[in-house]
Amino acid sequence: MLGLMRLVVIGGVAAGMSAAARARRVDRSLEILVLERGQHVSWAACGLPFYVSGRVASLDELILHTPDYFRRERNIDVRTGAEVVAIQPARRQVVLRGGERISYDKLVIACGARPVRELPGADLPHVFTLHTLEDARRLREFIEQRRPQRAVVVGAGYIGLEVADGLAERGLCVTVLDASPYILGRQGRELTEIVTRHLGARGIQFRLGTRVSAIQAEGVEGTPADLIVLATGVRPNVELAAEAGIELGRHGAIRVNERMETNLAGVYAAGDCAETVHVVTGAPVYIPLGTTANKMGRVAGANAAGRRERFPGVAGTLIVALRDLAVAMTGLSSTEARQAGFSPVSVRIEAPDRSRYMGSDPTWVELVADRNTTRLLGGSVIGKRGVPGRINVLAAAITAGMTTEQFAQLDLAYTPPVAPVWDPLLVAANQLRRALE
Amino acid sequence: MLGLMRLVVIGGVAAGMSAAARARRVDRSLEILVLERGQHVSWAACGLPFYVSGRVASLDELILHTPDYFRRERNIDVRTGAEVVAIQPARRQVVLRGGERISYDKLVIACGARPVRELPGADLPHVFTLHTLEDARRLREFIEQRRPQRAVVVGAGYIGLEVADGLAERGLCVTVLDASPYILGRQGRELTEIVTRHLGARGIQFRLGTRVSAIQAEGVEGTPADLIVLATGVRPNVELAAEAGIELGRHGAIRVNERMETNLAGVYAAGDCAETVHVVTGAPVYIPLGTTANKMGRVAGANAAGRRERFPGVAGTLIVALRDLAVAMTGLSSTEARQAGFSPVSVRIEAPDRSRYMGSDPTWVELVADRNTTRLLGGSVIGKRGVPGRINVLAAAITAGMTTEQFAQLDLAYTPPVAPVWDPLLVAANQLRRALE
Repeated sequence: MLGLMRLVVIGGVAAGMSAAARARRVDRSLEILVLERGQHVSWAACGLPFYVSGRVASLDELILHTPDYFRRERNIDVRTGAEVVAIQPARRQVVLRGGERISYDKLVIACGARPVRELPGADLPHVFTLHTLEDARRLREFIEQRRPQRAVVVGAGYIGLEVADGLAERGLCVTVLDASPYILGRQGRELTEIVTRHLGARGIQFRLGTRVSAIQAEGVEGTPADLIVLATGVRPNVELAAEAGIELGRHGAIRVNERMETNLAGVYAAGDCAETVHVVTGAPVYIPLGTTANKMGRVAGANAAGRRERFPGVAGTLIVALRDLAVAMTGLSSTEARQAGFSPVSVRIEAPDRSRYMGSDPTWVELVADRNTTRLLGGSVIGKRGVPGRINVLAAAITAGMTTEQFAQLDLAYTPPVAPVWDPLLVAANQLRRALE
Repeated sequence: MLGLMRLVVIGGVAAGMSAAARARRVDRSLEILVLERGQHVSWAACGLPFYVSGRVASLDELILHTPDYFRRERNIDVRTGAEVVAIQPARRQVVLRGGERISYDKLVIACGARPVRELPGADLPHVFTLHTLEDARRLREFIEQRRPQRAVVVGAGYIGLEVADGLAERGLCVTVLDASPYILGRQGRELTEIVTRHLGARGIQFRLGTRVSAIQAEGVEGTPADLIVLATGVRPNVELAAEAGIELGRHGAIRVNERMETNLAGVYAAGDCAETVHVVTGAPVYIPLGTTANKMGRVAGANAAGRRERFPGVAGTLIVALRDLAVAMTGLSSTEARQAGFSPVSVRIEAPDRSRYMGSDPTWVELVADRNTTRLLGGSVIGKRGVPGRINVLAAAITAGMTTEQFAQLDLAYTPPVAPVWDPLLVAANQLRRALE
């Protein structure tokens, strides 16, 4: 190839910077330019709730690398405050606000998502979302300067729960509202009961099954509040792509193949603006998460730089770490399994997280399998300790297509201080075997 | 079938009681008799080091169920102090010390193993092993009454390390001797360095590569000691079986098939007296551990009671939990992989165990894969937190036969307080991919 190839990346957070960094590793001569609309790149969005709670002292700690670092150490050019307002595929150019045009040979679109906030009253000064560093700065400043007493969190997803826990840690009275009778978008009464009981013991109230139609100055749906956090999910930023003729998928995010290629040659998408597939069903899903963004970005960057790598999809693994309790899920719930055409059988167990004589706490495990094949499809784990590890074992097993029998025979680690002789996963698996007989 | 069938189980600890309990679940009418030589059944052998250290206050806590419990709640007859001195397969009888004969229709042999102690001086009064409740009682009594200052632990296997850590916790000066230059029987310099450095910081000294030829009243191989613990491994109790014509395997333990059947019809073996196979190599192994004993016992009991279940073997998963550091391994080491005919490629990485801004500690991961197929073969994990979970993910992956590429793409849980965006397992997997290119 003659002359320098130029890779342009739109968006400089998880997917964008992963793509840029990976492309640089693959091709040392490629010209790489990252265009970031905001003032910072490479910051840890998933850390925002812990800045709000105070566990992370300064926002600077959430900024992993500066533009300077990328220029100096990675030979990646980063422009902050650079908002792309149009992609012109025919010219292989992007247009910045202000009119500047930048040519590309390869393009990675990683412009993320934005929080849903279309609700009457959402613009009131005591209403916040938590999606950017600026959001977090404003929210904590409000808490520290205005000393609100009563908070309402709208949305019992993972961000809503983390924020609620963090606000309670700061001494606020917190109420969580959600339109669904369940938390975390998971139709499971037991999971909702365990988590709301745990947070209830910290003074957090729940009003589940409450649809919020508007926000008032004095509160939300009759619950008084000096502070309101909207955490009702995100929408992918796809307008730029759609206007450029890039196809969207069935969930409204950018459609990509396993190489992160869009329908336009040389144009890739990754992270919260793109769909991927579910490893259990093979069907398209939109599950915007930090890990996935990093992995998709890595593959997009590698391929944009000339390799042929693939991203096989996600298992839908999600974990929420509250104080003294973590809640995690992976794969399909029973409801999702039924919708995907499986015949789900599920069990729920409670078992000690280590040998009882070492002082154990309960771990709850739910497993879902298909009746016909006994293949494991998903599950959830709740407990004080060991939750990431246990959900990850399950994620590995469902990704590998393990049967319930194979899973029940896994040679898992045992030593009294940290793991019981029958791991809760195996207790659940043995019960599932009986349920499948 | 006419009349009651009788299942006799020799040995009432992990494998034996699991077999009996499982047989009862399968067949409510079966007559079940457990013959245990000692005074207790169903006790937690793996908890002994924590009784010695003082973390477990009373030996009673390690006795999970009494003979009475089994009689009353499970309809299982248990005789303690009942030593079987002969098995007579032709008559389907066992002979007790004292001459009593007991007939069986099905027999499960679960008579465990015994610590190696053939060393001149091993019978001195300040020399201990740690294999039974009585061993633990004697050792702790000696410590509390005689107040020894200097201890030598012979053997740097998992029991040796746990005992050394526990004795140091009690304030003794501890030196660990092992004939090998490595700990845990694993040929890996880095693992040995990390663990000996950690225990060294607690004042535990190591003299590795030191073969112990005899024990003197004043110490071991020049290291003075008021207390000596022998932890140089175990030998399977196979004499009864061998004299009855039951075949042994290549490691000297009882040979069984995947149904836990010996070469004699109706006679099963399980636990520390029996061999099993390795799930990676398919070859026979002798890795006596509590989890394995429970699982083998469960399968033996089910089959003795008329079901057809199989035990697929072990991955060799082992974990040692020291104070503030756990060390775990699974599958094959590089050396073992080479011996098994693979072309091993291995990597070692150090990565934070959660997001750095939440206050992380290092986790070390070693992965071994086969160069030709990129299939994962084994590895080790060392760290303060999350070690059981990480080694279990690896155990699941090698059992499923995952390739390095599949493993690197696993959708593992991420949330800053408990897990980093790139899990140390994935950091290692990505490095292994590069090493395999």
